Amino acid sequence: MTGVLYGVGLGPGAPDLMTLRAARLIKGAAVVAYPTLAGADSFARSIAADLIAPGVREIVMDVPMSVERAPAQAAYDKGAIEIAAALDAGQNVVCLCEGDPFFYGSFMYLFARLSETYQTEVVPGVTSVTACAAAACMPLAARNERLTVLPGPLPEDELRARIEGAESVVIMKVGRHLAKIRGVIDALGLTADAMYVARATLAEEVVLPLADAPEKAPYFSMILLTKGADPWL
Amino acid sequence: MTGVLYGVGLGPGAPDLMTLRAARLIKGAAVVAYPTLAGADSFARSIAADLIAPGVREIVMDVPMSVERAPAQAAYDKGAIEIAAALDAGQNVVCLCEGDPFFYGSFMYLFARLSETYQTEVVPGVTSVTACAAAACMPLAARNERLTVLPGPLPEDELRARIEGAESVVIMKVGRHLAKIRGVIDALGLTADAMYVARATLAEEVVLPLADAPEKAPYFSMILLTKGADPWL
Repeated sequence: MTGVLYGVGLGPGAPDLMTLRAARLIKGAAVVAYPTLAGADSFARSIAADLIAPGVREIVMDVPMSVERAPAQAAYDKGAIEIAAALDAGQNVVCLCEGDPFFYGSFMYLFARLSETYQTEVVPGVTSVTACAAAACMPLAARNERLTVLPGPLPEDELRARIEGAESVVIMKVGRHLAKIRGVIDALGLTADAMYVARATLAEEVVLPLADAPEKAPYFSMILLTKGADPWL
Repeated sequence: MTGVLYGVGLGPGAPDLMTLRAARLIKGAAVVAYPTLAGADSFARSIAADLIAPGVREIVMDVPMSVERAPAQAAYDKGAIEIAAALDAGQNVVCLCEGDPFFYGSFMYLFARLSETYQTEVVPGVTSVTACAAAACMPLAARNERLTVLPGPLPEDELRARIEGAESVVIMKVGRHLAKIRGVIDALGLTADAMYVARATLAEEVVLPLADAPEKAPYFSMILLTKGADPWL
């Protein structure tokens, strides 16, 4: 019997924002897999740490720090071979993924390599988008409002055009793009409507009006921009 | 001591896609609140049913069937008064909400009425967006891709313009708007890229290419449209 490949969303960071299904799968896993970045500790593993039993096999895919795509692809190629061997040996493999596996999640690299050959199940998770909205006490979208999710690394002109045409906007992966994004939002006169949220749901969470945000943002930070839903809906 | 108002996201429908935090709050609740539509059973309550202890007080806000806004507003006005009385009496109130409270969630009606006066905590939940993506085995957005969420009731012209300018698209609340949305996607030549998902994660889940979708869609249905991420990312 070949094993099942699970892509498990862990939610935004607080361990109790994991789903019951994710917790059950991790507790029962004999093999877990997750990426690390340039040898640093894995954020995904830290969310699940209390549920990983002693003696569980851990397949670590270390992705070097690079804006090139090939090094990450090579790391996932190598990880996929190890995971495939475990699946062939009849073991289920639980892949740990911050947030949701199919929403900017690292699991997509493994899904692309393995899902045609192996039975694959994806367990959706709470995304940082709604976690940041909860942290900022900021309803995202109601009734017939549109919501646009934009990655911060997009070029300045494109960000500007996309924000201009949008209603509610979420800008992900702010990190080193903060100054550029801030410039765009300022130029559009929307700074007063924007909130900055970093490391939502963790002890070190920061929630600030964008105007008061620090100069430097971590990768796991976000800007929320809404025109404000009708207060009585 | 005044009670705390909790807006608790329950996820897309399968009870085990609730977060550990949501489950803990519901198990410990002495008062829960939720809306019903025209006297029908509450979908939110059905997700949480196994966790609601016997004897718990249930505040039900019955919203009449109407496209007008005033009847819903009146139902939430009345509910907010009952909830406020419980909070004033020192009881916490756990408001049950399908999906995520701030993502097209009914809790926003109560948040608008009560959060300035009472301590309010929002527990984010798994949204139907990522649950439908998981059900359809369809990665939503990777790397620097944009994601646009559109409500199905938007006018045809607006839907067309928004879909044309988008990368990944999620169309929510399909229901009686299915024929219109289908027409728009057909006219744009994108039907082959579109999946239809209804009642994701429930026993009666339906996942079909849009071309094969039935004539009639339930309110809890969605269309996912992606240009397809690079298969190796």
